[in-house]
Amino acid sequence: MTSGRELHFGYNVLGAGMHPGAWRTPYAEPFGSLDPRQWLQVAAIAERGTLDAVFLADGLALGRDIGRLPHRPPFDPIVLLSYLAGRTERIGLIPTVSTSFEEPYNLARRIASLDHLSHGRAAWNVVTSHDAAAAKNFGAGELAGRQERYERAEEFVDVVVKLWDSWDDDALIGDAGSGRFADAARIRPVDHHGTHFDVTGPLNVHRPPQGRPVIFQAGGSPAGLELAARTADAVFCALASLPYARAFADDLRGRAARHGRPADSIRIMPGLSFVLGGTEEEARRRHDELNELAGENRLARLAGQLGVDVDVLDWDRPLPGWLLETADPSTRGSQGAREVVLDLARRERLTARQILDRVITWHRLFIGTPEQMADDIQEWFESGAVDGFNVMPDVNPSGIEAFVDHVVPLLRARGLFRSEYRGTTLREHLGLPRLERSAALS
Amino acid sequence: MTSGRELHFGYNVLGAGMHPGAWRTPYAEPFGSLDPRQWLQVAAIAERGTLDAVFLADGLALGRDIGRLPHRPPFDPIVLLSYLAGRTERIGLIPTVSTSFEEPYNLARRIASLDHLSHGRAAWNVVTSHDAAAAKNFGAGELAGRQERYERAEEFVDVVVKLWDSWDDDALIGDAGSGRFADAARIRPVDHHGTHFDVTGPLNVHRPPQGRPVIFQAGGSPAGLELAARTADAVFCALASLPYARAFADDLRGRAARHGRPADSIRIMPGLSFVLGGTEEEARRRHDELNELAGENRLARLAGQLGVDVDVLDWDRPLPGWLLETADPSTRGSQGAREVVLDLARRERLTARQILDRVITWHRLFIGTPEQMADDIQEWFESGAVDGFNVMPDVNPSGIEAFVDHVVPLLRARGLFRSEYRGTTLREHLGLPRLERSAALS
Repeated sequence: MTSGRELHFGYNVLGAGMHPGAWRTPYAEPFGSLDPRQWLQVAAIAERGTLDAVFLADGLALGRDIGRLPHRPPFDPIVLLSYLAGRTERIGLIPTVSTSFEEPYNLARRIASLDHLSHGRAAWNVVTSHDAAAAKNFGAGELAGRQERYERAEEFVDVVVKLWDSWDDDALIGDAGSGRFADAARIRPVDHHGTHFDVTGPLNVHRPPQGRPVIFQAGGSPAGLELAARTADAVFCALASLPYARAFADDLRGRAARHGRPADSIRIMPGLSFVLGGTEEEARRRHDELNELAGENRLARLAGQLGVDVDVLDWDRPLPGWLLETADPSTRGSQGAREVVLDLARRERLTARQILDRVITWHRLFIGTPEQMADDIQEWFESGAVDGFNVMPDVNPSGIEAFVDHVVPLLRARGLFRSEYRGTTLREHLGLPRLERSAALS
Repeated sequence: MTSGRELHFGYNVLGAGMHPGAWRTPYAEPFGSLDPRQWLQVAAIAERGTLDAVFLADGLALGRDIGRLPHRPPFDPIVLLSYLAGRTERIGLIPTVSTSFEEPYNLARRIASLDHLSHGRAAWNVVTSHDAAAAKNFGAGELAGRQERYERAEEFVDVVVKLWDSWDDDALIGDAGSGRFADAARIRPVDHHGTHFDVTGPLNVHRPPQGRPVIFQAGGSPAGLELAARTADAVFCALASLPYARAFADDLRGRAARHGRPADSIRIMPGLSFVLGGTEEEARRRHDELNELAGENRLARLAGQLGVDVDVLDWDRPLPGWLLETADPSTRGSQGAREVVLDLARRERLTARQILDRVITWHRLFIGTPEQMADDIQEWFESGAVDGFNVMPDVNPSGIEAFVDHVVPLLRARGLFRSEYRGTTLREHLGLPRLERSAALS
């Protein structure tokens, strides 16, 4: 291991795969992402690769492109990962759940339940939702602005952590002889009375195996980074270039330090989409085929991400100067996602086609051989800017299989990645401490 | 089968078991109900017995008796049943979820997801919550009154059904050649704008395998019965005597008829707790031992159910006359549960001890041999008042094992219960039709 550090990998499944052409390829089933058996298959592959976790992104409205693209995820992430918990042994389970349309008591309870059933493999990826269509499934109003969403998120996370902490580790007694089941004095109300939430508690689930299940945070705006710096164990972020990644890591670690947290307390795990081939040409050919199948869907997605009409973009011209210079036009949409692409476009004056050769949606795209990908991962890791990646195969299951069978062995041989799980919990996989909570300490 | 009818059984696990002494017995592990392996074990036993479904009751606050009794369920029902979905093949999965502290979009999505992952085995047991402590985990206010809770529940169920219906059965195309993934015209917004909810839809999960997952309803007040009569496929109710059961069935079927539904459209499945023994004496001895272990917990639970202090009750005197005649004192608490016990006490002038020999909490208690239990079940079934039972073993896993190994074979031999699953979905197990929804029909 490089100075004791080790790589960490989430596997962001994204249904049929990251590439919008994925479902149409000859090496995928069109309805594969809707088939429980494929989910079992890809989870098993990831576990064979000793990856840290399966990660599920989320959205709370059906996409407008359902005529052309599979909905993703096709199932509620907590339900799907609870299902997979019963069919996997060691791999972590990270559902994304928005703080904007849930109650903290329900969320804390579900993640705690998943942590118990999986013997300590649960996490929660915190997002605030930036999709106006989602808001319309939860009331008549508009989506709240970013500031309000993050204020609610900050309080939401606090309530969830308080609920997870409401039972001491040693609250359970289980003495059949005396009839004492638990020590009620070691189970405390949370009595939270805040701006957005009033929650008396305690939680009706006992202390989770991990103490606190792992908290991921996935917002890239300054408000999102502040939330991560204060509360998260790990971030899932979009970092399209190494200079951008270094600046991001410095920013996040500086914020964490200002919250009194050690510099290494947050695992930085950007998305990394990839197209692998036995040779670079083979990989490029696979990418070209996928692009052919995706057609105009790619440009439409880029336009959506940038908050402009698709007509504004031209495949073979640099992005218009006014767009490069325009500050985020709204408080909705993903600010982090937009900035990632604009930063890349500004640095290198890229055309839309060139951008889409470097990112899928807003995540960095690697195209090449397993050897090249291992080099790339090692370079980023050794820069110190990242602790690993949330890998996003172009197509499932073939992409994750190629990663596990051809990239992971190289990283193992280089001493950068585990060959077997050493711990049983996600906290252990991620090298995060477990916070004890007991009468002896309080 | 008796005139084509067949028995239906849910298995209401209730953690350690229905009896408050359960966790302390020598034939149970004190922490068995917190152990995922025991949940796998009892689900496997129930499936071996070809029961229709595993049923999970719910509550949204930690009980005050945690010092003496295990919390139940110890895990969120949807999470737990999603976990079990991956480890069972045919048995139905019925989570209870309250309409008072959830959003219909989230609920519809989770049950639809569970239906997909289980290949058509999901249900939803609708409750409105009658626990004031639950309300304090979801805001500063008091629990809403019964009328308001049921108004919300009525609209909640309607929205959920609309969301399940928002995709036609044949909306998916999956034509890789043309790139048509779905026929967007067969996926419609629900555009619900009501008193409690505004939901645009459509759902972001495709049409569930059952079309509409099964709806159970478990409220026993007139408002609860109205909700069931209009919307439910099955009811989980508390019927402590056969005369009461007949009156209940007539009432419910009459209400269903007034909503234009066929008389046999709702499966009536009251709770049936039981203590089995090889002889009647053995069963009584087991019950006595359990009572000894439960101590005063039983009387305290009865008092709580009746909405009075425990001092009001005396083990060996009839309930006071004023209590028998007092109408439900509040709009909170479970009206149905209270009335079940008072009806029994009134009919037979029972002491508290006698009541607790006939019901556990508010569900009928059977004590005897497998042969006697089979007779009892047959008598109730053939009366026409019920379609089966939600069985509630005294202790897990030994109670469910005794039922499956010794009562089920008798019912099979009498031609009253299936020997193997004939269908794959819960609707099929329950003999309920699947509602088609396709372009050809609309």
